[in-house]
Parts: sequence; structure tokens; C-alpha cells
Amino acid sequence: MDNNVATKFPKLAPKGPSGELLLANERAKGTFDVEELSKYMYSEEWLQKMSKVLQVLETEPAFDKTNRYYQTRKEKITTSLWKEKRLIEIAREQQWDETDVQIANFLYDQSTPFTLHYNMFIPTLRNQTTDEQKKLFLEPALKHEIIGCYAQTELGHGSNVQGLETTATYIPETQQFELHSPTLTSAKWWIGGLGKAATHAIVMARLITNGKDMGPHPFCVQIRSLEDHRPLKGIIVGDIGPKFGFNSVDNGFIMFDHYRVPHVAFLANYSKVNKFTGEYTKPPNAKLSYGTMVFVRAHIVMNARVAMAKAATVAVRYSAVRQQFVDAANPRKWDNKVIETPVLDYTMQQYRLLPAVASAYACFFTGREMMRLYDLNQEAVKAGNFNLLADLHASSSGLKSLTTTMVIDVIEDCRRACGGHGYSMFSGLGQFYQDTLPNVTWEGDNYILTQQTARYLLKTFRNVIAGKAEPSEYNQTINYLTQFMQNPKAKCPATKPSDFLNPELVLSAFGFRAAYGIAKVAEQLDRHGRSWNSMLVEIARISKAHCQFILVRNFIVALQNDRQLAQPQYKPIVRVLRLLASLFALHTMEKELSEFLVASYLSSEQSEMLKQQVIQLLDEIRPEAVSLVDAFALPDYYLHSALGRFDGRVYESMTEMAEREPLNHTLVVDGYEECIKPFIKNITTSSQIELAKL
Amino acid sequence: MDNNVATKFPKLAPKGPSGELLLANERAKGTFDVEELSKYMYSEEWLQKMSKVLQVLETEPAFDKTNRYYQTRKEKITTSLWKEKRLIEIAREQQWDETDVQIANFLYDQSTPFTLHYNMFIPTLRNQTTDEQKKLFLEPALKHEIIGCYAQTELGHGSNVQGLETTATYIPETQQFELHSPTLTSAKWWIGGLGKAATHAIVMARLITNGKDMGPHPFCVQIRSLEDHRPLKGIIVGDIGPKFGFNSVDNGFIMFDHYRVPHVAFLANYSKVNKFTGEYTKPPNAKLSYGTMVFVRAHIVMNARVAMAKAATVAVRYSAVRQQFVDAANPRKWDNKVIETPVLDYTMQQYRLLPAVASAYACFFTGREMMRLYDLNQEAVKAGNFNLLADLHASSSGLKSLTTTMVIDVIEDCRRACGGHGYSMFSGLGQFYQDTLPNVTWEGDNYILTQQTARYLLKTFRNVIAGKAEPSEYNQTINYLTQFMQNPKAKCPATKPSDFLNPELVLSAFGFRAAYGIAKVAEQLDRHGRSWNSMLVEIARISKAHCQFILVRNFIVALQNDRQLAQPQYKPIVRVLRLLASLFALHTMEKELSEFLVASYLSSEQSEMLKQQVIQLLDEIRPEAVSLVDAFALPDYYLHSALGRFDGRVYESMTEMAEREPLNHTLVVDGYEECIKPFIKNITTSSQIELAKL
Repeated sequence: MDNNVATKFPKLAPKGPSGELLLANERAKGTFDVEELSKYMYSEEWLQKMSKVLQVLETEPAFDKTNRYYQTRKEKITTSLWKEKRLIEIAREQQWDETDVQIANFLYDQSTPFTLHYNMFIPTLRNQTTDEQKKLFLEPALKHEIIGCYAQTELGHGSNVQGLETTATYIPETQQFELHSPTLTSAKWWIGGLGKAATHAIVMARLITNGKDMGPHPFCVQIRSLEDHRPLKGIIVGDIGPKFGFNSVDNGFIMFDHYRVPHVAFLANYSKVNKFTGEYTKPPNAKLSYGTMVFVRAHIVMNARVAMAKAATVAVRYSAVRQQFVDAANPRKWDNKVIETPVLDYTMQQYRLLPAVASAYACFFTGREMMRLYDLNQEAVKAGNFNLLADLHASSSGLKSLTTTMVIDVIEDCRRACGGHGYSMFSGLGQFYQDTLPNVTWEGDNYILTQQTARYLLKTFRNVIAGKAEPSEYNQTINYLTQFMQNPKAKCPATKPSDFLNPELVLSAFGFRAAYGIAKVAEQLDRHGRSWNSMLVEIARISKAHCQFILVRNFIVALQNDRQLAQPQYKPIVRVLRLLASLFALHTMEKELSEFLVASYLSSEQSEMLKQQVIQLLDEIRPEAVSLVDAFALPDYYLHSALGRFDGRVYESMTEMAEREPLNHTLVVDGYEECIKPFIKNITTSSQIELAKL
Repeated sequence: MDNNVATKFPKLAPKGPSGELLLANERAKGTFDVEELSKYMYSEEWLQKMSKVLQVLETEPAFDKTNRYYQTRKEKITTSLWKEKRLIEIAREQQWDETDVQIANFLYDQSTPFTLHYNMFIPTLRNQTTDEQKKLFLEPALKHEIIGCYAQTELGHGSNVQGLETTATYIPETQQFELHSPTLTSAKWWIGGLGKAATHAIVMARLITNGKDMGPHPFCVQIRSLEDHRPLKGIIVGDIGPKFGFNSVDNGFIMFDHYRVPHVAFLANYSKVNKFTGEYTKPPNAKLSYGTMVFVRAHIVMNARVAMAKAATVAVRYSAVRQQFVDAANPRKWDNKVIETPVLDYTMQQYRLLPAVASAYACFFTGREMMRLYDLNQEAVKAGNFNLLADLHASSSGLKSLTTTMVIDVIEDCRRACGGHGYSMFSGLGQFYQDTLPNVTWEGDNYILTQQTARYLLKTFRNVIAGKAEPSEYNQTINYLTQFMQNPKAKCPATKPSDFLNPELVLSAFGFRAAYGIAKVAEQLDRHGRSWNSMLVEIARISKAHCQFILVRNFIVALQNDRQLAQPQYKPIVRVLRLLASLFALHTMEKELSEFLVASYLSSEQSEMLKQQVIQLLDEIRPEAVSLVDAFALPDYYLHSALGRFDGRVYESMTEMAEREPLNHTLVVDGYEECIKPFIKNITTSSQIELAKL
């Protein structure tokens, strides 16, 4: 019965020139060795590993992405579990190392109910347990004999950990803790992996011992039966329901009703509770944990790079294929015939996309520098030197905030720049946006984080004024603040647009602008007695200004100092990277122009020059655009986008994906008989009969 | 078997004070009559109609929203069809008029496969058909005997209508047109209602007659059988697949394979094709259609108002209930006990939300003014006066672009300001964002539209310079340009923060800034020979500057001139509206600060004053915040948000909605047996046995 025959498109070609030809043409314009640039960023070894892993995934049904955009929530969860099962098996079969597994997860590009087991449960157990607890919890977790999650946030309590309500009261008589949720707002909420998958949870609960509330501490708690997976008695647990994205993860809730756990559940590597007396011992000063945070955030910045790279790859490739209007002043020709202009030729489109490409490269250099500083700091701390740490930690807070916000903006800008088709799930950018969005809220809300950075900046400023902070190779904050104090009325020396290509000039501008903002805030707080709360808007601004300085500086400095790039064969690459560094810096200046103007550092005339230089840079980078996104080396399997395919077969891919839409599996829609047919009238007038005959 | 028992939350209260109490407390702070303000905006009659319609919908199963956030794509389509069926029936039963039906659709707040039947198919038939065609197509459409859609966009062709590929070739011998899709890119794509529901489509196809291509023209074409709803022969039709939002609509594709339609299918109210000779007659000049566009766009601005109102209502109410941290400098007390501070007390939160409230009010006044000008213009045009039209049409293009972008930003800002829970679908803001997003692309891409506005602004500027345009009550563009030309080096006269509360000062600033930008662009194009393409970034800026001037002006002028508001009982309302007008204007100035600084119109010191005045306004509006969103009079049924409920029962609502999550209908997740159980090991070591015993 042909009711169930799926709709098929005729085998027609798109109006020429084809996407393949258009992209080939773009690739011929690039002036540098794309593969060389990829290797520079990822290392040859990593790229080889990726291609090895990719080969496996592409033939493995559990990793198939074909149905990704049509799945219901339930299907997403079930296929996620299947993927995790197969990943464990494949890793064993193929003897994959940790990097291989990471690459597989990166390429699959969708979190699952097990993600938090790997990213939070195991690391917490590694860090916070005694040897006994490692045997008890960590070892089985590593073998997936138990599956865990990390339960901190509560229904009524997010950023403020000190406000958590769940209690864990120690009962020395039975050597147990009693976990309890006293109110509705104390329900643990948003916990990834908890909803349906986890057997165990790290639960952050207020430790109460001998009648005293010692604040939140971590406990490792079994929550589901290891026999049949049912919730244990005294526990209410489930999924929190649909979210804007991330629906392949079972974010869950849990409530405890006087639920008892043994003494060993208290994670005791740092603080202790005496088994017999209940006496509490404080942890030693935990400054070192700042180091871990820096490490995590360096990864966030590196991931920001990949996310921007993905969005830019899709949008740039599609903009080279998609044609709209004939630009009358400058008609594009193909085989001597006028064709519509590829949208990438429009300045506005370049203005929307090329800074996104530049941002991805900027985050690469800052992520790499953060890793280097992290290592340097670990060495220093071992030698008892904590000098680096404060600056590094403060910058990393602000950078997490800035770069994750940049990512979201870039994804959405790229999606909109794809026009109507950007709104189709087949663009690959819709679900990607949805899944990436929580980054601006979790791991520290982006607004709240800026306060940490600002506190450090203000403290440093006060030290500089008081002569208590010396310029240093390792502390750029002190350096730009000192420079500013030496000449607080400095002016930008640019006299023509191309002066803005001078890295020193640009760095001075960013340093001055950050310092000026910090000085203004300090003045309001310290001299005019303004409250911290009333200054929160400006506080967010100085954190951003500082972090934009860092992004610009790391990009520029890397191009000046990197030994590998100094080799002659990298010349063409360095040339293009310099253009990108300038575009990133100048486009950022333009976006934040008012802050450079308010400081009277830049004049109106100079800001005109700046804008002209940005347009000039767009024009110079335009021919490299497709090569620059190719260098991100993101395979089609990863992108899973009809618009961003390497081969440019955009329209063929859109129709193939539409054919798979479940609604097209039947010709007549469910609901027709009951809801449409009763109204429809077959035609009766004479001219309608004429119509019907045809 | 209790495997299928749904998870239930215990009957616990949230940690006090409750949402009800917190909101009651907020409402007690408001200084004006909320109901009076609602009536002023909507009229008493409309509000009564709304409450009448609401009562019906709340008890009608087809309009139930309970399952909205859990539905699969297929379920969305099926329930949409059911809703449309019932709406037709209810409207008949209850003898609803057009406004009642509109209100029902507004409250239901989700497009369906029939939406384009009402919004595009019927209006096009009304406008473009002959009397014979009205009988044939319009009459059955009004009775739902046929269901239609509007097929213009093609897979490879969006904004550029002239690039459409579908052909309709006239064959005088049989008096038929032959519709054909020559390439893959010529497939009609994105057509709402076409995928599964429509029996007919208005198809825009290139008319080819006597060998000549006359460009795109509309045809009314039957596409599915009126007997069994199957696609007719020669037609391939289906759904284009999942989208970022709007998944309750069956956006579809269609391709024609030499598909014949009779002569009467050509919509012939304007142009004609001679039945016997195929001779083509051009339409008369269609300047009047500009009027319709203004009308449509006035509605877009009014809808922008409601959309911002919705987002702001949710975020403001939730921010009054949600508490985070104790503000040490200013601890909040309740019943003499320190509580965590409601987040609405943080300046940053006010900075994120109160301008959103102000924007909603701003759009109300501009939408209303556009309606008034539309009426005025219709009168004028009837009297042969086209003076108003150009300005009105140009402004309406830019306002569509500006306000729909504002809406998207406001929804997302409000969603993020809700913290973690903003990401839950239960916030009501996620799906709302997804469904609203296409507004920035359709009805004219927001970037492309700005070119229309800019073209008019530049032309007017050239006229002013040439002395060919006189200041006029009806043309504010000429007025601010003339003022600028009289004093192109004007400076803002503010000497203290409160000077920025002066409406004249603010209006002059916005007028100057717009004029300065226009003059700069004209200079680049006309004197320096820059190409239009290279100026697209600046071109978008001047359109925005012009439209921000209009929004600010309409707000200010209404408060000065509205007769109703001049009545004494409106005094408290006018006081608050003035604060909002100032906040809208000054916050906009702050956002666009660089353009006021570049022009050297504002000094650095003045920009500091401006910022201070914004913070001062936030402080003054803060106590009115909940009352101001209450005045939008958006019922809970419409909001369908756990966070935005009128009664503040946020946490109770979150848990009730989580209980309904389909994943919670079984205790053990699908996939457990195959994917989790094989790895899980029941515990064996002695201390684990100890654990298991508990």
C-alpha cells in the first residue's frame, strides 16, 4: 500500500554552478598550506588518532547520527545509553587510550546520561577520597560497576553553595549519617545522569555533627538498587523534564527522607568526622584547588575555540555556496555568464562571519597559553611560590565568562547568517546552540564570575597605587596598570588606518582601556562610597575589558614569539594569522568602541580610521575564508550539517535529510480523517469541475 | 506492578517566605492602579473579551497546554489539527467574532498547519483575485472546504524573489499553465501548512507566455485530492523536517513535474493573461501595496510589545521570588530574620530586566502611532497625497528589523536572567524563543530591510541639502536632518545626571546622532566614491539610529500629548511611564554610546552622568517592577510558565511539571537491561556489604 511509501525527490541537480565547484574555486584562492595549519594547532599525532577513531565510528551503528535531528526525548536517552555501552566495548576491543575515547566523545558531540560519571563523579572521587574510599567507590566506578553523578544544585539554590538546604546529620551511635531534604526547595535539581541512569551520587549536604552546622560537604551515596535499578527506600528520584537543549541527558532531581548512609560515605580526604565522637576536623587551606579550576577553565577556552570553529565552518562554507541577488556594481561571472553573487562577497556577511573565524583562532592561542601557565604555576606552587596563582585564577574566571558568551553569540550569529536554512535543524547549528547554551550559566554564572575577576583587578590596582606591586613578566595586569598610572592621559598615536595594524599600538590601547575602567570603578567605590551592588554593571565591564586584553595579547605575542612559526615554511600561515589577530583586535575595539572613546584615548577621527581598517581586513581575509575554516579540520561526521559539508553538496543534502522526516513516511497525515476531512467539500460549481478534470 | 507508577513529590513547602507572600509584598509597593494601565493599553472591551475567551479555552481539552513541553513532533502536528478543528466548531457554537478568534489564537500561542491558511492564503485571495476567482477559491477557503498555503521561497532562493526558478508556461491551445520545477534548487521550501495539511497553494512561479519570461506571478493550485488528501499526480510534496522551533507547523516542500492547471489559476486581479492569445497585461502601478506593508509591520511592532511583555513578566516575577546570597551590605529581612536577597534587588538584575519592561512599553506607543499614521496615510492617499507614504514605509521597514531583533534579545536576556531554571522548558521562555526566532529572518531579513530604510534616509538627506525638503509635522526625518544641517557641531547641553531626564534634550541627542550617521554615509558614498556593498555595515547602523529615534520620540510625545493621560486620575501612571520612557531612552543611549561619542556630541563626563542616571532610574522603577508586568495582563494560561505564575508558586509548579515528564512514568529506564545492567556488579567487599545492609 503506497500510503507508507516515503516521499522521494527526483534526481535533479541544483542550478549551477554546483557547491563542489564553488568550494573548489574558494580553496584555490587560499594562500597557505591548510594541512600545515591544522597540524600546527592539533599536532599530527592527534589528527591521526582522530582519523583512526573516525573510521571506527562511521561504521558503528551505535554512533550513527542519521536520526539525530528526528529523535524524541525518550529515543535520545535510549540511544545515548546504547552509545555508551558500545563505547566501553569498542575501547576494549580496539585498545583505545584515553585520548582516543575523548576523541570519540568529541566527534559524537552529544552528552549522555554517563557524561557526568566521567566528568564529575570519577574526578571528585579521585580527588576527595581516602584510600579506603577509592577501593570502595573509585575502582568500581572506573569499571562501570557503579554509575555516578554529582548532586549539588538544589531547586531553590544555584550559585550560592552556602545556601544549600539538604542536611547530613551524624549519628555516632550507629555510625551513620542521616540525609534529609527538609523542604521542597531542598530537592537536588539539574543533576546530570541522576534522572534515570546513576546508581550512585556525590551529594553535597550540610554536615551537622554534635548539633553544629559545618556547611556543605560531599557524600558518596547509593541511590538505586544494583539488582534491578529501582530507587532505594527513602529516596525520591526522577528526571526534571524537558530542557531547551541537552535532552539526551537525564538531568534529575532527588529528595531524601531520613535516608541513612554509613560513616564511610563522607568523603574524607580533606575534612574528617571522627567515627566515634563525631568530632569534625577542618580541611587544610585549599588554595591548591584554584589550580584545578584554572585547568578546567583552560579546557573551557579550548572548547570555546572548537565550538566557534564549528559554527564558522558551517556558515562560511554555506555562504560560499549560497547565492543571492546580482551585485549590479560588481556582477559575479561563471563560465562567462552572470550568476547571483555568493553571499560571502557581501561586506555585511564578511562582517558577520570573519570575526567569528578570528575569535576561534584567538581562543586557541589563549587556551594554549593558559595550559602553559597552568604547568608553570604547578611548578611554582610546588616550590612554594603562589605569586602566579592569583592572577591566573582571576583571569581564568573572567575568561570562562567572556569566551562562553562569545561562543553563544558566534553560534547564533553564524546561524542567522545562514538565512532561512539556518533555522532548519539540518543546518547543524540549532541543536548545537541549544546544547551549548548552558555553558553561560553553569561552572559559575557568567555575570557572577566577573565579580571574582574584578575583585582581583581592584585589589591589584590598589597595590599598584600603594607601590606594593612591581611590573613582572608574569603579571600583565600589574604591567598595564603601572603603565596607565605613569600616563593616565595617554592618547592613541594612530594617524592613519594602517597604524592600527601595529601590535604595540593595539596592545597599549587595550591595556589603557582596561586600566582606565578599573581606576574609575576604584574611584567610585573607594572615594565616592558607592556600594558594590550599585557598581555591578561597571564591574562586569572591567572583567570583560581585562579578558579582552588577554585574548588580544596572547594572540599577538604568540605570533611574535612562537618558535615553530618562526620557521620559513610558516611564512604564509603567519601572514594570514596576523590578519586574523588584527581583525580580532580591531573588531573587538569597534564593538567596545565607547570605552575607548570615553577614556578620550581614541578620537572620533581615529575611530573612523579603525572602522576603515576593519573593512580593509575583511577584504584581505575574504579569499582565505574557506581555507581558514578547512584548517579547523572538523570532519563532516562531527559537523552533521547539510549546510557545512566539505563537498558543498548543500541542496542535495537538505533534500536527503527531508526525505527522512518521519512525517514523510506516510502520505496522509494522522488527524486528517478526524480534523480536516469533515470540513473539506468536493468541488461542485462548473468551473471547479473544470479544475478537477485536469 | 509499581514499575509504572509515576514519581510523586512529597507534600513539602518551599523554604519561606513563599512566592505568594513575596509577590504580594511587591504588589503592595506599586504606586499606580495596575488595572487602569491595562485598560489604557488594551481597552476595557478587549480585556473583557479576553476573559470570556479564556474561560472557554481553559475547559476545552483541545486547548489544554498541559502536555505542550513533552510532545514529539508528530504529536504537535496532530494536536494542532485538533485545536483548529475545535476552534472552528467553538467559534460557531459561541458565535465568536473575528476578535474573539484572534484572542483565542493569541492565548493558545502556538502556530499550526492552518495558520498560513488564515494569515496568507485568505488575504492573498482577497487581494489578488477576480470575482470569478473569489467564488472559486476564496469562498470555499473561508468555509474551510479547501485549506491553503502560500508557496514563494525556494530551496535555493530566499530574499531575492526575482531569482525564483519555478516556471508556469502558458499553453493557449489547451488554455492551461504548465507548472514545472526545473532543478533541485527550484523546489518550493519552508512553506507553512504545505507539508501535510494544505489542499491548495498559492504558488509564485515565473510566468512564461509566448516565449517571454514575465517574472514571478501568483497561481492558485490544487495540490492534494479532496477525496482522500493524497498528493495529485505530477506533484511531490512533503514536510521539510525538524526546525529550531515552530515544529507544530508542517513547513513543506513541493516540486512540480509538468503539472497542468487551468487558465483560472492565474490570479488576475492586477495582471492578466489573455486566454486565447496568451498576451500579457502589466498591473497598474502598485504603490498602494506599500500601505498594506505598513499595516502588517505596525502589527509586528505591536506583537513585539506582547512578546517582550511575556518574557519580562516571567523574569521579573521569578526574580522577585528567587533568592540568592545574603547582600552583606544591605541584608533583606522577613519577620525579623535575615533571608537571602531576592535577585531583583541586585543592580545587575535590574539592569538586565527593567530595560526589557521599558522596551515593551516603548513598542506599545510606537505600534499605536504606526496604526494612526497608517489610517492618516490611507486618507491622504485617497486624496491623492503620497507625501506621508515614503517616510512611513521606510520607517516601517527599519522598525520591523529593529523591534524583532529587540524581541529576540529581550527573550534571551530574560531567559538567562532566570539562571538555571531559565533553561528548563517549564520556564516557558525556551520554546517561546525558538518559535519567535524566525521573525528576524522572514517578512524581510532584518539586515536586508535596513537597506530599504537607509536608501530613503540618504535620499531625504540629499533633498535637505539641496533645499528640496521642508520641515513638516509629518516628517520627523526631514526635521532632524534640517536641525543637524543648521548646527552640525552641536553639543549636548547636559551638566548634571538629571538633565538627561529632559525629553527635549534626549530627543535632540537621538536626532543629532541619526543625522550625523546619515551625513557620514552620504559623504562616503557621494564624495569618496565608496561602493554600497562596502558600506553595508554603516548602512545598517543608520537605519537602527533612525528607528531608535522614532521609538524614543513616540514614547515621549505620547506622554506629552495623549489626552486620556492628561486626566488627573492618570497622574500616578504617567509618573511611572515617564520613568520608563527615560530608562528606555537612556539605556538605549548607553548601549549605542559610541555613536553619541564619535559625533563628539556627548563628552566623556556626560557619558558618566548618563550612566549614573540609568542606575538612578533602575532604583526608582524597582518598586514598580511587578506592578508594571502585571499591567500587561497576561494570564497564566497564556504564559504557561512555572517561573512566571501570577501567584508566585514557582517551586510547586516546577515539581508538578517534572512529575509529568514521560521518562518518570516508569521507574526503570528503557535500555537499562541491555546497556547498563551488563556492567553493574553487585558489591562484594566487606565494607560494601556493610553499605548494602543499610
